[in-house]
Amino acid sequence: MQVAQQITNQILQKEFVKQLPSENELIEQYEVSRNTIRNAINVLASQGLIRRVQGSGYYINQHILRSTDLLMMGAKNGIKPEKFRKDSLKNDINSNSRVNSKVVHLDDTTAKGEVAAMLECDESTPIYYCERVRFLNGNLLCLEKAYYLKEFVPFLNEDICKKSIFDFIKKQYNIETESADDFIKLVTISKEDAKLVDKEAGAPAINIREINYLKNNRPFNCSSINYFDENLTFYYHLDTLISH
Amino acid sequence: MQVAQQITNQILQKEFVKQLPSENELIEQYEVSRNTIRNAINVLASQGLIRRVQGSGYYINQHILRSTDLLMMGAKNGIKPEKFRKDSLKNDINSNSRVNSKVVHLDDTTAKGEVAAMLECDESTPIYYCERVRFLNGNLLCLEKAYYLKEFVPFLNEDICKKSIFDFIKKQYNIETESADDFIKLVTISKEDAKLVDKEAGAPAINIREINYLKNNRPFNCSSINYFDENLTFYYHLDTLISH
Repeated sequence: MQVAQQITNQILQKEFVKQLPSENELIEQYEVSRNTIRNAINVLASQGLIRRVQGSGYYINQHILRSTDLLMMGAKNGIKPEKFRKDSLKNDINSNSRVNSKVVHLDDTTAKGEVAAMLECDESTPIYYCERVRFLNGNLLCLEKAYYLKEFVPFLNEDICKKSIFDFIKKQYNIETESADDFIKLVTISKEDAKLVDKEAGAPAINIREINYLKNNRPFNCSSINYFDENLTFYYHLDTLISH
Repeated sequence: MQVAQQITNQILQKEFVKQLPSENELIEQYEVSRNTIRNAINVLASQGLIRRVQGSGYYINQHILRSTDLLMMGAKNGIKPEKFRKDSLKNDINSNSRVNSKVVHLDDTTAKGEVAAMLECDESTPIYYCERVRFLNGNLLCLEKAYYLKEFVPFLNEDICKKSIFDFIKKQYNIETESADDFIKLVTISKEDAKLVDKEAGAPAINIREINYLKNNRPFNCSSINYFDENLTFYYHLDTLISH
């Protein structure tokens, strides 16, 4: 993971511009095993940051570097769009996330109905429910309603929820998202939701319903997030779409 | 691919309900090699239709079967949402796609600006430009503006564009999408676009900008599609999000 992040930084800092160095050159530069380099390359390829061109190596995906305000949906560990913002690449690569949150609700409760179905648990299973308005650089980013199984995330409080919950549970409980199901819809927001984000009822939003899974494919979190900003772009890389 | 499609049909027909049979049972049932079965399983897993649970096999992703009007974005070869519509699973599994199109423009032209960048070609490279209003079961689905490199798609006409272009180029030119970059945004539509789809200017839409790649990672097509229907859900499965 560290090597993948370091290669990413070198791409963002324009040290690698068009193409990655060869596997052997990367092994030498990072002083790690071939396996470690291959894993790092696989991570970057699965996120769409680089693409293998048969017989000629790994090329940097220029569309991604050109885009501003890109949310890399394949890099789930917290929303860190500023890492991929063209206008801030030079200065902000190592800065902390500029996303912060206003916590609307934080409940220690139980799963019900659709939430129980998404989390693949019985109704009455203990969960945390957290509703937040999130801001990016002080501007409205989204309204998020998130559910966490207490079996995997035994403790949350308001202070934690003001920052990145994913960063917290990674550090505290060693939980990382291994795979995810994302369901995207065009919606118009309800009167209640509109009040929370200072919009008119019926304002359009992109709704992303996410289910996030552990390495063993157990869901530990699901959420429903409304994004309002027309400047935001959600990026998905798709691969192995057909069999060979 | 055939085996993956056959397993998919068995899932949709509820012959496999919760879990897939074991690899050995599938080998016996389909009378194919272990490799063929593994490839088929990988295709279904990469599309999110099944999930591997460590030590206990492959489980069918119930969230997908429960959802209606789901566009499986990992299954790019044509838009065939009715295959995944809950209310029509029983009758329509083997029916033809009910998507048809009204062709607004079809031009034999050259790449320019952003299109040349997305297709990774020089400006003045020969392309087809096709603009269509697409309908699903007679209801407005989307407004699509698509660009095809003539190097890979040497011929298109209006009759072809009324149906699935992807189906045509697969049959005619053996072209299939191996990987794709999808960029999703909330937009409001222009006056000109609004007229074409009988909407008010400023109506909201989900815009998906796609770049589709061949097996050797050359882009052959890009498009910008506006979807208007609040009942449509776009489904993305994400995997290998972190390294191990």
